Amino acid sequence: MITLTSDFGTPYPAAMKGVILQRTDARLVDVAHDLPRQDVRAAAFWLREVVPHYPPAVHLVVVDPGVGTDRAAVVVRVGEHAFVAPDNGVVRPAARALDGDVEVFEIDDGDAASSTFHGRDVFAPAAADVHEAGVENIEAVPGITPAADCVDLALPDATVEGDVARGEVLVVDDFGNAITNIPGEFVADATSVFVNGERAPVEPSYAHVGVGERLVTVASHENVELAVNQGRGADAFGVQPGDSVEVTR
Amino acid sequence: MITLTSDFGTPYPAAMKGVILQRTDARLVDVAHDLPRQDVRAAAFWLREVVPHYPPAVHLVVVDPGVGTDRAAVVVRVGEHAFVAPDNGVVRPAARALDGDVEVFEIDDGDAASSTFHGRDVFAPAAADVHEAGVENIEAVPGITPAADCVDLALPDATVEGDVARGEVLVVDDFGNAITNIPGEFVADATSVFVNGERAPVEPSYAHVGVGERLVTVASHENVELAVNQGRGADAFGVQPGDSVEVTR
Amino acid sequence: MITLTSDFGTPYPAAMKGVILQRTDARLVDVAHDLPRQDVRAAAFWLREVVPHYPPAVHLVVVDPGVGTDRAAVVVRVGEHAFVAPDNGVVRPAARALDGDVEVFEIDDGDAASSTFHGRDVFAPAAADVHEAGVENIEAVPGITPAADCVDLALPDATVEGDVARGEVLVVDDFGNAITNIPGEFVADATSVFVNGERAPVEPSYAHVGVGERLVTVASHENVELAVNQGRGADAFGVQPGDSVEVTR
Repeated sequence: MITLTSDFGTPYPAAMKGVILQRTDARLVDVAHDLPRQDVRAAAFWLREVVPHYPPAVHLVVVDPGVGTDRAAVVVRVGEHAFVAPDNGVVRPAARALDGDVEVFEIDDGDAASSTFHGRDVFAPAAADVHEAGVENIEAVPGITPAADCVDLALPDATVEGDVARGEVLVVDDFGNAITNIPGEFVADATSVFVNGERAPVEPSYAHVGVGERLVTVASHENVELAVNQGRGADAFGVQPGDSVEVTR
Repeated sequence: MITLTSDFGTPYPAAMKGVILQRTDARLVDVAHDLPRQDVRAAAFWLREVVPHYPPAVHLVVVDPGVGTDRAAVVVRVGEHAFVAPDNGVVRPAARALDGDVEVFEIDDGDAASSTFHGRDVFAPAAADVHEAGVENIEAVPGITPAADCVDLALPDATVEGDVARGEVLVVDDFGNAITNIPGEFVADATSVFVNGERAPVEPSYAHVGVGERLVTVASHENVELAVNQGRGADAFGVQPGDSVEVTR
Repeated sequence: MITLTSDFGTPYPAAMKGVILQRTDARLVDVAHDLPRQDVRAAAFWLREVVPHYPPAVHLVVVDPGVGTDRAAVVVRVGEHAFVAPDNGVVRPAARALDGDVEVFEIDDGDAASSTFHGRDVFAPAAADVHEAGVENIEAVPGITPAADCVDLALPDATVEGDVARGEVLVVDDFGNAITNIPGEFVADATSVFVNGERAPVEPSYAHVGVGERLVTVASHENVELAVNQGRGADAFGVQPGDSVEVTR
C-alpha cells in the first residue's frame, strides 16, 4: 500500500500515480491533496493524525516549498512504515507517533527530470521502488543510501500553569474547527472555560449546544478545539492557524 | 467493496480508510466527501442517485450532525447491499431505491474512542466488519444486533394539479443546476413552461440553447432541472435548496 | 486499469464508477474531476501532461459541453492505450503524445438513458466494455465500430522570432502558476526576460526568489511558466487562460 499526501490540488497527483503504477502494483490511498499550500506544519499535523490508523504502508508526502533547492530527499523508516518526502521535517511528528526506531535514508535526486515537480520525478519513483523492494529492504534500493539524520520539526507544545493554558491554533479543519495544541485533559473536568477572555461551554460534542452556538470540545485529536455547532469555530472565536490561544478554567 | 460518503472534506476520510484497511482488504470507492455540511437531506438525495448503479457493496455514510448525542448507529441491509450510518434517515431513500426488504441492525457504540469522530471510531470499524463477515452474515458481527426500525426520511414529493406542478429545489449540483422534485414526465410534451412565473424553454440537454441561456430539462435523475447552458441555473432562476418551485405548462 | 477525467465535481463520477464496476473489475484511478467546466482545451492540456506517465490503460474522459447534441462518442486507440470520450478533440493532444498510430472508433449511443449524463449512460459502459474485452480487441465490442476520423483539437503553438516569443496562457494550475505555450528552451540561457514588457528573473524553481516574488521558470511541462514563490503567478502577472504573452529575452 502507498498513501499519497500533497498540497498539489489536481491533476498533478495523477501524474505521480501514473509513475508509481508503471513500477509497482500497490494499492494507492489518497490522504489529501488539498492541504494548505506549502504549509509544512499543517501537513505534519495531519499526517500525525492519520498515519497511525494505517496498516504498514509506504507514505508518499510532498509538501515541498524548497523544491529545486539543495534540500535533500529522504526515506524515513519506522517499523513496517516508510515515509518518502522532502527533508523539511514534514514526516517527523508522524514518525514519532508510530512505534519503532526512526531510520533515515537519503534519495539521490541528481538526475531529476524537472526542477519543479520532484513529486513526479523523484518522490513517486522512490516510493514505488521502496514498495516494490519492501520496507524491510530499503537498503537494497538503488539510489537510496543510509543517512545520519533528517530535519526535525516539532509541533509547538502548550504550557499549562495552574488554571491557565497557553497554546496556539495548529490548524483549522474543513468544518472550520480551530484545533489547538492545548491537551484535552486540561478542560476534562470543566463545564465552561474562558478562551482569550470570553466564556464558552465545554461539551462532549457539537450538538450539545444550539445550532450556531460556540463551544469548546476535545475532538478526535485529543486537543482542545474551538467550534460552533454546524458553523465555523475559527470565525466565531476570531482565530486562524498560528494565533495564540489562552484558555482559563 | 466499501463505498464512502461524507461531508468531511479532507483529510478525515483518510483516517476512516486506514481503520478499514486495518480490518479488511476491501476495494474502497469514494462517492463524495464534500457534500453540503450536515445536510442530511442532500446526502440522502445523492445516495439515492448513486447507489443503485453499484454492484453489491457496503456503503459507509457519515453525514452526522448528531454525533456524540444519543442518536443510534445503524446498519441497514437491502438485498446484497448494506448501509452503515447514523440513524438519521440519510440512507432510507437509497434503501427504498434498491430491490429487497429493508432490515435494520443497531451498532453498539458504547466504547467509541471520541465523541466527535464516530466516522473513524464507530462507523468505519463497523463497515469493515460487515464487509469482512459478508452482508448476508451481519447477524454474526459482534456488537451489531437486530433492531426494530430506524429513522425514516422521505424526500418531499411534488404535487401536480392539471397543468401546475408545485415542488421544491432538492439540491444544487456542482454545475449550479437546480434539481427539483417535480417529475420529468410533467414537462415531457412541453416546448416551454413557466417557472415561478417566467417562461423558459424545455430542452433535451444544455447545448440546445445558446451559451448563458436558461432552460428547463429532465436530467439524469429524471426530475425537472433548472439550468443554464455553461452557466449556473440556480443563480439564473434565483433559487437554492429548499426553495419552492411552481412549474406551469 | 481505467483512468477517469471529468469536469463533474462530485458525486456524478461515483455514478460512473458504479456503472463500470458492474461490468468489470478494473483498477480505477482518478485523474481529475474538478477541471474547468466545459473547457475542452484545458482538459486536453492536462491529459497530455498526465497520460504519458501511465502504463497501458483505458482513459475515460468526459468534458462534454455538447452532451445531448449530435456530436459523436468515440474510442481512440493508440498502442496499448484507449481513450473513451466525446468527439470534441479533447483526447487528441494526449493521443499524439503517445507512441503509436491513432485509430478511431465510434460508439453507438442511440439508446442512452439520459440526454444530459452520457458519462454514466454512454461513456462509462463503453470504457468498461473496452477494458473487459482488452484494448487490442475493441473491434469485438458490441456497439463500437471503426470510424474514419475524429475531431482534432490542436493546442496553439507559440511563435518565436529572434529574441521575441509570442504565445498565450494555456492553463492556470491550482497553485496559480500560469502555464504558457512558449517552449522552455526559449528562456534556457536567460537570467531574466521581459514578460509583456516587465522584467522578471528566470530561475530553475520557485524558492530561488524570495517569498512573494515573481519569477519565470520552466516547469515540469517544459513550457515557460509565470509564477510567484509561494503565491499566485497568474495574479501577479495579470493573466488568465487565453491571454497573450510576449516574452523578450
